[in-house]
Amino acid sequence: MRSPQPLRNGGDNSCSPSHPPRFHSTVAEHKLRRFNSLILVFRLTSFSFSLASSVFMLTNTRGSDSPHWYHYDTFRFVLAANAIVAVYSMFEMGASVWEISRGATLFPEVLQIWFDFGHDQVFAYLLLSASAAGTSMARTLREMDTCTASNVFCVQSDIAIALGYAAFLFLGFTSLLTGFRVVCFIIKGSRFHL
Amino acid sequence: MRSPQPLRNGGDNSCSPSHPPRFHSTVAEHKLRRFNSLILVFRLTSFSFSLASSVFMLTNTRGSDSPHWYHYDTFRFVLAANAIVAVYSMFEMGASVWEISRGATLFPEVLQIWFDFGHDQVFAYLLLSASAAGTSMARTLREMDTCTASNVFCVQSDIAIALGYAAFLFLGFTSLLTGFRVVCFIIKGSRFHL
Repeated sequence: MRSPQPLRNGGDNSCSPSHPPRFHSTVAEHKLRRFNSLILVFRLTSFSFSLASSVFMLTNTRGSDSPHWYHYDTFRFVLAANAIVAVYSMFEMGASVWEISRGATLFPEVLQIWFDFGHDQVFAYLLLSASAAGTSMARTLREMDTCTASNVFCVQSDIAIALGYAAFLFLGFTSLLTGFRVVCFIIKGSRFHL
Repeated sequence: MRSPQPLRNGGDNSCSPSHPPRFHSTVAEHKLRRFNSLILVFRLTSFSFSLASSVFMLTNTRGSDSPHWYHYDTFRFVLAANAIVAVYSMFEMGASVWEISRGATLFPEVLQIWFDFGHDQVFAYLLLSASAAGTSMARTLREMDTCTASNVFCVQSDIAIALGYAAFLFLGFTSLLTGFRVVCFIIKGSRFHL
């Protein structure tokens, strides 16, 4: 399903409403491609961090005498949130690659714009709350005997949570860019006013 | 310090860029007042919840044999986040009342618009992460002996955290409205295109 609205091209890449689209420009097209590539890079980084966080948490179990991540609700929440963000980022990377290569959005443009921004916001909140909850749990474990008995478990949990924060950071940056696209769409009826 | 830009008035309250300001309309002015009043109501609700949460957490201490909120880092974080949001909401309520009564923003318009939206976003993230961390800690306490020894302490902590979530919800609603004002400002150079 492609966007019903074709790309519009003009003189610059700002989303000022005062300049209507004028003529096809390779410079403008290059700028749009660069903007979309930046989104792709942020998504890739966010995907990498959230996937790494999920893997770190998932493999945080060694032997029957050591604590396991699935014994703690909070760590299950951290894993779930990071896994969700990893899957979402992978899907969005596909959508970005489609957009860069074909010059059209995967869903109809208006849907794509709001879908991206809405999900970026919601998942950023989800990831931050999971990481904050994880931090609280990790600190609590340090005050108990768990970490003296199995320090590796605590260190690996800390790393997983830190990776979750990094994923949140890049998801937040992406959210700013997709927010900018929403504003451009409201102004000009096009996701990016070239 | 008043806004250097006077209010502009037109036919409707949408922020479509296609209709330039036309004439002064009492209906349009009434609509702007209603929009600002809605923001004020949300801020008041957010303030009430965050203040109540702070008070509930602050008074969660009874006798020397019972646990105290300040023994737990997470509960200190919950209290601090709610107190910050309460103070911020109180300040913003003052700014809203000023705007409704005088028809001009407290700071220069562009600063006020971005200040409101930026702080709403940041404090919403702060409050959610504090509440999520608090939830994690409250669940941990229930699994330990703390809650069997002093159930009232745990119940009161739960209430404080729940009030924090409510404050976050209304701060989120306010953030949507101030986000709408930012979009209107970008489009028309006025915080609300009447």
